[in-house]
This record gives sequence, C-alpha cells and structure tokens, in this order.
Amino acid sequence: MNHTHVALLTDYGTNDEFVGVLKSVIIDAAPHARVTDISHGVAPFDVRGGSLMLARAVQYVPKGIIIAVVDPGVGTSRRAIAVEVAGGDGVLIGPDNGLLAPAVAMAGGAERAFELSNTSLHLEAPGATFAGRDIFAPVAAFLVNGGHLEDVGAQLDVDSLMPGLVPLPSEVNDESFGAGVKCEVTWVDTFGNCQLNVGADDVAHMPSALRVVLGDEVRRASIVRTYADIQTGALGLVIDSYGMLALSMDRSSAAQSLRLGVTDEVRLFPYGDEPDPSQTTKVGIRR
Amino acid sequence: MNHTHVALLTDYGTNDEFVGVLKSVIIDAAPHARVTDISHGVAPFDVRGGSLMLARAVQYVPKGIIIAVVDPGVGTSRRAIAVEVAGGDGVLIGPDNGLLAPAVAMAGGAERAFELSNTSLHLEAPGATFAGRDIFAPVAAFLVNGGHLEDVGAQLDVDSLMPGLVPLPSEVNDESFGAGVKCEVTWVDTFGNCQLNVGADDVAHMPSALRVVLGDEVRRASIVRTYADIQTGALGLVIDSYGMLALSMDRSSAAQSLRLGVTDEVRLFPYGDEPDPSQTTKVGIRR
Amino acid sequence: MNHTHVALLTDYGTNDEFVGVLKSVIIDAAPHARVTDISHGVAPFDVRGGSLMLARAVQYVPKGIIIAVVDPGVGTSRRAIAVEVAGGDGVLIGPDNGLLAPAVAMAGGAERAFELSNTSLHLEAPGATFAGRDIFAPVAAFLVNGGHLEDVGAQLDVDSLMPGLVPLPSEVNDESFGAGVKCEVTWVDTFGNCQLNVGADDVAHMPSALRVVLGDEVRRASIVRTYADIQTGALGLVIDSYGMLALSMDRSSAAQSLRLGVTDEVRLFPYGDEPDPSQTTKVGIRR
Repeated sequence: MNHTHVALLTDYGTNDEFVGVLKSVIIDAAPHARVTDISHGVAPFDVRGGSLMLARAVQYVPKGIIIAVVDPGVGTSRRAIAVEVAGGDGVLIGPDNGLLAPAVAMAGGAERAFELSNTSLHLEAPGATFAGRDIFAPVAAFLVNGGHLEDVGAQLDVDSLMPGLVPLPSEVNDESFGAGVKCEVTWVDTFGNCQLNVGADDVAHMPSALRVVLGDEVRRASIVRTYADIQTGALGLVIDSYGMLALSMDRSSAAQSLRLGVTDEVRLFPYGDEPDPSQTTKVGIRR
Repeated sequence: MNHTHVALLTDYGTNDEFVGVLKSVIIDAAPHARVTDISHGVAPFDVRGGSLMLARAVQYVPKGIIIAVVDPGVGTSRRAIAVEVAGGDGVLIGPDNGLLAPAVAMAGGAERAFELSNTSLHLEAPGATFAGRDIFAPVAAFLVNGGHLEDVGAQLDVDSLMPGLVPLPSEVNDESFGAGVKCEVTWVDTFGNCQLNVGADDVAHMPSALRVVLGDEVRRASIVRTYADIQTGALGLVIDSYGMLALSMDRSSAAQSLRLGVTDEVRLFPYGDEPDPSQTTKVGIRR
Repeated sequence: MNHTHVALLTDYGTNDEFVGVLKSVIIDAAPHARVTDISHGVAPFDVRGGSLMLARAVQYVPKGIIIAVVDPGVGTSRRAIAVEVAGGDGVLIGPDNGLLAPAVAMAGGAERAFELSNTSLHLEAPGATFAGRDIFAPVAAFLVNGGHLEDVGAQLDVDSLMPGLVPLPSEVNDESFGAGVKCEVTWVDTFGNCQLNVGADDVAHMPSALRVVLGDEVRRASIVRTYADIQTGALGLVIDSYGMLALSMDRSSAAQSLRLGVTDEVRLFPYGDEPDPSQTTKVGIRR
C-alpha cells in the first residue's frame, strides 16, 4: 500500500510560513506526493473544533495520508501517532490528544496505531515546537516513499488512544414549552451559519416550526432546505450539507445577529398554535 | 477536448473545510486533475464582486474548467450551469446568477450552455446547501475524465442565461467643476487600492491632475504609473494592472484613509489652474 | 539545470486574485511546474517581515525557483532580479529591495545575479503595478521550460544588490539589573508567540530564569522547551523551532497579553535570588 495523497488540516493559519514549510518538507523528500489542504483555519489551540472539521471532511478525502495538527501540547509527553483505518486505505497522523478520534470513528475505527517513536525518520531541529515540520511531515514522506507503517515506531493498543469529545444533544422538559431538545453550536462557518449537534432526524417528531431558545431569548424558526427559503431578517433552521440543523439567515450571518458562538447552548421546542411573534420576545424571569 | 486544469473561485473563505472538500471530490474522482485556486476571498454572498474578480482573472487562467461559486440561492430553482467558451478551450461551471457572465463575455461570449440537470453525475447529499461539493465538483471531474459536455444535462439557450451587472461610468456636468465623469469603486484590494470603473483611456481628454469628488469631499490626484510616484500622504490615480484607474496611496490604504468601499460613487473632473490645496477642502453646501 | 519547483512568498494576501493569477501565468506557460505557497500573509509593504520569513523558510524549500514579492516600489527604477545560490540549486526572483537578501545569505550567498531586463520574456500589460504577473511569473516559467538564467537579462555585480536589514541584539548594562541583552521582536506568529533576535546560545551564560523588561514593565520568564511547560497565565521564553527565544504563553497569545508587536524592544537580564513577584511590577521612574 503506497499512498501518494497527503491531506492537511491544521490551526497554523496561512499568515506564517508554517504550512508552506510543512509542505516543502514533504515534497522535498517525496516529490511525487500530492498534497491537498483541507483547511488551516482551525482556531488556534481548538482541538475540538479541529476534530469536528476533520470528521466532517474525512469521508470526502482521497485515499491516503492525513496530517492533522492542533497541538497545544507539542513537545510534551503527549504521543505523536499514526492511525490506520479502512483496511489501510487511510493513515491519520497527528498528536494523540483527541484531534483524530472523531474522524477515525467516521472512517470505521482504528485498526492499528503506532507511536512515531522512530526518531531516525524525524528532522533534527533546534526546538521542539514544530512537530508538523520535524515529525509529521517527514513520517508522511517516508510512507509516500513506500516506507512501512510498522517502521514509524512502536505499535500501540488502539484502546489506549485519547478519545475525542463529541457533544451529544439531550432531551429537556421546559415548564412553558414542553418536551424539547437541548443541543449546542458545534460550528460557525464563514457565512455565520451555526451548526447544531442535532440532525433533521432528531427532530422528525416535531413540527417544522420550532421555538429556538437562546439564553433568555426565544425565536421562531422553521426547518427549511435552502437559505433562500428563509425570509429576510428571519431565522431559519437549514438542513445543512452534513444533514445537521444549522441556525441560518438569508444572506447574512446568524452568528453575528444572534451573538452565537461555538459551544453555546441552544434549546429547541415545537412551536404551537400561537401566532408567530415575528419579533424577538423575552422570556419572563418569573413564572 | 479533455481538460485537466480546474480553476476555482468562491466566497467560501479558507477557514472552513469547504474548499478542501470541493478539491477532494475532484481529485478523488479525477486524480490527474490539476487544481488552481484563483481566490476564495470573495466577500460572502457578493455575486457582483466575484463576477468582476473572475472577469479580471479569466484571461490568465489556463485552458480548462473554471468552477465559480458565489451562490446565495443554492438549492433553489436557480439553475446550475456549464458554459462553453472560446471554441471549447474553456468551460465555466457555477450558478446561473450572473456570476459567470462578465468572464464569459471577456472570453468571447457563451457558445453553448447546459443545465447541470443530469443528477446521476452528482453526489448524494443529506442537504442541498453545498452545490460546490455535490454538483459542481463531480461534474468537473466527469469532464476531466473525458465525459462530454452534452452529457451534463439539458442544453440551454445561451440567451436565457442571467446577465451580469457591470457598472458603467457616465458623464456629469457640475456647476462648479464643469464636465466630468461619474464612476464608482468596483474593487478594493488588500493594499487598499480602490479600482474605479474608468480606464486611463476614458480620461485621456483630461489633464493628468484630476479633482476627485467623494461625497462632499474634494481631493486632488494625479494620474501616475506607480504607487511610488505618489507623495507620502497624497492621493494618486494609478493606472492599475488591468489598465483601470485606482485611487491609491503610497504604502498605505487609500480605502481606509478615504473610508471608501465597493460601489461608492466617485466623480472626476479636470483640475484647473488653481493651486493645489494640499489638504482636503470641503465643498460648500450653498452655491 | 532545469528546475520544476517554484515556491511563492508574497504580501498579496489571498482575498484578491493576485496569487491565483500569478500561478496561472506560470502553469499556463510551464504546465509541468510544481508550485508551492510558502505564504502570502506578509503584512502589506513589510519588506523586512517578508525577508525574515523567507530566510526562515528557505532551508526547507525544495531545490528550484523562489518568487518573492513584497514590492512597494513596483514599476519604479528599483531593479527586478534573479539571484542564483547554492551552485545553481536555487534561483530567487523578486525585487532588489532587500527582500531576498537574508534568504540568499542563508543559502550561502549570491553566486550570480541578473537584472530581469530582457523584456521579451515579460507579459505586456496595461499597467506597471503587477510585476508578479507580468515579470516574475513569466521569467520563472521561462526557467522551468529550460531557459538559461543568462538570458533573463543583464548580469549584475552581486555586490551591487540591496542588502537586507537583519536586526542584531546588543549588550546592555542596567543600573538595577546588571548586564543583559537588548533585543527586539522580529516576528509575531499566528499563535501570538513573539520571536526575539536572540538564540538560546546567546543567553547560555544566564540562568534559565530571566527578567524581561518591556518598556517600563518587568516580567519574569523561564527558558523552556515547550509551551505546555509555561504555567497558565505566566510568561515563558520558549526555544522555538528555529532555535530562537520567543516570548510565549500556554494556549494564549503573548503578543496580545503584552501588547507586543514586531520591532518592539525587549531587554533580558538574569533573574536573581529575589522571589518571583508572580505579578507584573512597575519599574520606578526614580532611582
């Protein structure tokens, strides 16, 4: 199994030379490697955000190697690992801090895992802070050049890998609004859509008009297929490209309008027969 | 005609995985495709800005396929299209919302157009919001793999395509300043240069020193060839790399200094014999 | 010597089509070129910042051509140049404004240099402001296609090239703190780490706990190997991936916390036996 494709996902941003140097190390050692950027826009240090992005993307990434780096513990005793999935069709390389875990699960689970402990494959470096350049990239190049996964270091028990943290929705019962779902914002995209950890299936028992409770604010939003189905200025719940519900507005940012960010709690309830308030209403503090 | 080059222009930004996933879909299906990013920095939902960027770039893009996506109507009845230009040397793929039109015109006009109605080429997806991934990318890969343009869907009357909106300058006559040109800012680049929809030719009848009227502010600016020809702190009209006039400053942002943005109106008049005020002067409200 | 690799470093940003058009020109003329972005995130007009980034990256870039553009003097009489280094293994192309100089020095010094005066290789353009597209890219493509460096223009005396400005640290003697080192911030990365122009070797004679003087503020920081070795909220001096000391915090931005930017002065002194103040202390104005 000789992979040539290397996909990259990091929190390096593109203002510095980090990504360019990581790629240069791969290409210099393995000129026939094909490198594709998934994104380098993960928020700095945001392991959870990076792990969810990787999980969303992994099903579309070509067979081969993925290097993922969101690694605030770089240089410490946290392990650098390579995880084999899908009968060898994929190898994920990165820190063992939970970053890879949701994507590995999406790809069917870890089949083998290795610690990148064979330091003879690494670049010598004057500092320990750039594992992407000094460890992950040269190991990827080694594999592209036909190196065996067994030679990157000591095999690990896959059960010893750090799990990822994927937030799950839960049922709630509200005195005023009845039975509903408590969820959270898992992703705010560049358009301001706020993905929730609730799929369309999870609310199939509810009507398509929902009450959206954000802190002490209550909004009405209907489940729709497209952004353009949302009236100007109104809030919608779009079934997004991953099948999840996203709080969205038409041609403007729901995140900005609602001041919503990742990990913020959102509660969804069926919207009853009462008329659409058409404006924000405050929930009274007293019953 | 078997194209291998695919150029990309979107408003996806690079903070999310959108671009990486779109590319992954192409490369996974057509590994010999060569993908080049024009830019993914079009402002969200800014169809006009994207269409002008594409028109500026298209003359330099290698023969092949262009995928352009600024698509607030994604998933609605707006058509997804492929437009053939230049005797088949180019195929532009994107939404039929005017985004492609100026570039198609620059490339000599649409020769054939097809709606991407052959859904057997598309990816199945749980939501309708990511046409780049589910429709445009797999259709491009189909063409790279030798598929025929006739097979992407129903042929369209090229005259039915949505036109683009390219702002044109007009003549004005001002009581104080005489005959001039009313134009607008079509593009603010990363350096703060404000491109106008006026070419150097359009003001060839004027002296090289011009009066620039922005709202109630009047500035003097000379037409120059380079940014360094502008005195520090002064305003210049640089003949930019597309032959258009751009309001510019030397090593600082004219947009920021003048608080100018895209679509803002600018009026240009010949600068007479009066001395250079060397500072901003206000135009009196009364005559 | 027929190079196929072209690395790019500019201050173009990626919001405009500049980078895409520059690449398109290369690929259109030399389809077998392999293009790698080092970064396009140099601050606009920041020649020194770009030159230091290029110097950091150059040792990792594959053999071939580098195009570097931070060029506020574009179109003026500043020369466009190609500089050969490392026995022909590298050719750096860009403006002769000091941008290339530190990288050329890192690569062993200029062996030959040419002015890009052979205008028959350039693209005709309606304006003089986009040398990347009109001069640097087509010259690179010419070399990728087997063109000889001697044919890009007139050979230059390498001693006539504009030198770069690399800031050097100096010794200081402070009445209160004794002998120390005066240095400056040379780079603030996307994580807020503030690289100093002082290597770990330069302070090998000092204890690992240092007094960091920033204006009238005094902080304590220890030299450490990893970010995670810094206590939450504390300041550290990490030996970064280039062997330089960087003012850093664990999982937050030292630049933001200290309001530090590039070129800001920093003074380092040994930290004595006195207890760690554990908080910021002000240096009195009077003795």
